[in-house]
Amino acid sequence: MPRPLVTFTSDFGHDDWFVGVVHGVIHAVCPEARVVDLTHDIPPGHIARAAFVLEASARDFPPGTVHLAVVDPGVGTDRRPLAVRARGQLFVGPDNGLLEWGLADPGAEVHAVSERRYFRQPVSRTFHARDVFAPVAAHLARGETLGAFGARVADPVRLDRPRPRRVDGRLVGRVAFVDHFGNAITDLTEQDLSDAFPLIPETGLQVRVAGRLLRGLARAYGDAQVGTLLAIVGSSGRLEIAQVGGDVAERLGLGEGDEVAVGVGEA
Amino acid sequence: MPRPLVTFTSDFGHDDWFVGVVHGVIHAVCPEARVVDLTHDIPPGHIARAAFVLEASARDFPPGTVHLAVVDPGVGTDRRPLAVRARGQLFVGPDNGLLEWGLADPGAEVHAVSERRYFRQPVSRTFHARDVFAPVAAHLARGETLGAFGARVADPVRLDRPRPRRVDGRLVGRVAFVDHFGNAITDLTEQDLSDAFPLIPETGLQVRVAGRLLRGLARAYGDAQVGTLLAIVGSSGRLEIAQVGGDVAERLGLGEGDEVAVGVGEA
Amino acid sequence: MPRPLVTFTSDFGHDDWFVGVVHGVIHAVCPEARVVDLTHDIPPGHIARAAFVLEASARDFPPGTVHLAVVDPGVGTDRRPLAVRARGQLFVGPDNGLLEWGLADPGAEVHAVSERRYFRQPVSRTFHARDVFAPVAAHLARGETLGAFGARVADPVRLDRPRPRRVDGRLVGRVAFVDHFGNAITDLTEQDLSDAFPLIPETGLQVRVAGRLLRGLARAYGDAQVGTLLAIVGSSGRLEIAQVGGDVAERLGLGEGDEVAVGVGEA
Repeated sequence: MPRPLVTFTSDFGHDDWFVGVVHGVIHAVCPEARVVDLTHDIPPGHIARAAFVLEASARDFPPGTVHLAVVDPGVGTDRRPLAVRARGQLFVGPDNGLLEWGLADPGAEVHAVSERRYFRQPVSRTFHARDVFAPVAAHLARGETLGAFGARVADPVRLDRPRPRRVDGRLVGRVAFVDHFGNAITDLTEQDLSDAFPLIPETGLQVRVAGRLLRGLARAYGDAQVGTLLAIVGSSGRLEIAQVGGDVAERLGLGEGDEVAVGVGEA
Repeated sequence: MPRPLVTFTSDFGHDDWFVGVVHGVIHAVCPEARVVDLTHDIPPGHIARAAFVLEASARDFPPGTVHLAVVDPGVGTDRRPLAVRARGQLFVGPDNGLLEWGLADPGAEVHAVSERRYFRQPVSRTFHARDVFAPVAAHLARGETLGAFGARVADPVRLDRPRPRRVDGRLVGRVAFVDHFGNAITDLTEQDLSDAFPLIPETGLQVRVAGRLLRGLARAYGDAQVGTLLAIVGSSGRLEIAQVGGDVAERLGLGEGDEVAVGVGEA
Repeated sequence: MPRPLVTFTSDFGHDDWFVGVVHGVIHAVCPEARVVDLTHDIPPGHIARAAFVLEASARDFPPGTVHLAVVDPGVGTDRRPLAVRARGQLFVGPDNGLLEWGLADPGAEVHAVSERRYFRQPVSRTFHARDVFAPVAAHLARGETLGAFGARVADPVRLDRPRPRRVDGRLVGRVAFVDHFGNAITDLTEQDLSDAFPLIPETGLQVRVAGRLLRGLARAYGDAQVGTLLAIVGSSGRLEIAQVGGDVAERLGLGEGDEVAVGVGEA
């Protein structure tokens, strides 16, 4: 068996001991696992942002990776813990939409986690990452089957998000994530663009955002002078708005949910 | 032997190379060890805060875990390095109160580290985490005995903290730690509460903090409406003051050292 | 073979998934490697600061360590990826001066990385840390030879920095890095000092910085009263300006590039 890989995403920050304790619990159950932190800087309770992190990055990990994600304002209530197999990978987290990228796979197997023998005892009221989710992720990494944790469920909570739409020949999406460099990553995928404009080369597309018109997609951040605004297909396969050597979100006041429209010619 | 686990806590932050170098030194001595960062965001020199991090989290790690902790304003002076076995775990750090949770165990074995053959050479004046504490932690992880590092000491520096006290039938403690979510974790343990009020159910307790009266302990953060203030026994077994979906420390202006009183009825 | 060690330095921050994905890519190619983060808090595009991090810390790692460093404003342009063997260690990063510490070794072997079979496919326009540098670092960790990645190059981009100079019997250097504690680390090494003032003990040196005169070098941060300014040879072997128990850079308004002069007597 290859050495198992577990990713970990949360809103725990780094100022407390919460992240380290979760690493320790995984180690205790599955010492051979490697745990990779995706981010713990999700704003508290911001489920959609964490769901986007998984969506943008999970595909970069090898098949069989276990993705542990905990943004869990409902901890201690009767919201279900889930274990999901989808897209060749495994996901563990609360049933609140966080695992949307896995759930959106039509072939997803979704199980509610109810078998308390996998839990760390006693189960606290406030830290199910330590007591429920981490042990389950570690047992999955050890090869435990989904069915062992609990029954299959057909009605997981789905994330409610606006979808890109066609308006007067243009494709209208939104800023989904502003990254560390201030790049505004949209929900428009490379596939969305080629579906909407199948015969148009990237140089023929025009992007309208925050009152600006960007002509053609760029090939690299560094292809133009510092300060130039550009649109580019970024590393997660999504259209991004960027500024050469700068923070475009700050410059244009862009934030999550802002509209971005792609068209042809005078788009 | 199970794969050894070393936790690491400091006030080094993440903007420099200090944390990474410590990981590298441990790896060089004990490549099979896993190093788990608890936090490096302790405010510079804030020994009591780091001591609380160890106190709240060390019990969550498996027996035999080595806890390396370095908040060390006295680096380079004659303050002693310590290696401690207590509560089934091992602790390495400066003799300044940082290891209080281990030292408070009546069965603690406390050794001063003086055997320079375990040190990285040359020993610098300013970075004993690299040159002294990390190598010692790594040798402990490899199974070296405490006695190999130096003589037993009977007078380690203890942390001077106010203890919870009884006042007119109430139990009065303090806020010990404000966490990433703004929850105010007190120094009152579940045991303190049941010792003080042995026949009273949690619903019969009342908590007074910052001029507010909270009736009964809650079962979950999410059990009431967003904005509700609540008192709850948190994941480290201590009474916490929290706000559903919000930052209670900011709202009430709570900080370390503020008093929290628990009583019965009109507490 | 000892377990391979890879360090990782970047300007990616921790709020996104970029660092975690790089860990995952290294794991996929070389599961037995340990990846140690040096820092990811380099200000975006600040090549010189990342180069200093490597210069100050790489020597603390065991021979054969692979240092992956990515501060890469030219990603996607024709700047070359480099793989370098120098000072007994290995370095991977863009050809923009970031690897200066390795390049400054007269015995450095410098190769341009061009063999696309080592890359993650498809190679994106914006994330060569994932698609180019991490796979190359992981293959180096597995023992691949430098020559396998591409041809040797004789003209890598070097970092253009002012060098310490002699002025009227004094040695004049600069603040190279302000660390987490506010200590101002200079570019003056212990070797520079003993070369310039071979017969003078440290107590006979005087340091002039920000209009202050500091007499003699200190032996420890904690050797004087809180608030005292001092000059000390720090843990990377460079002269530092520090304040006992405080942040000297804030107090004196010190920043990168500010001059620090060392002399004898009335320096």
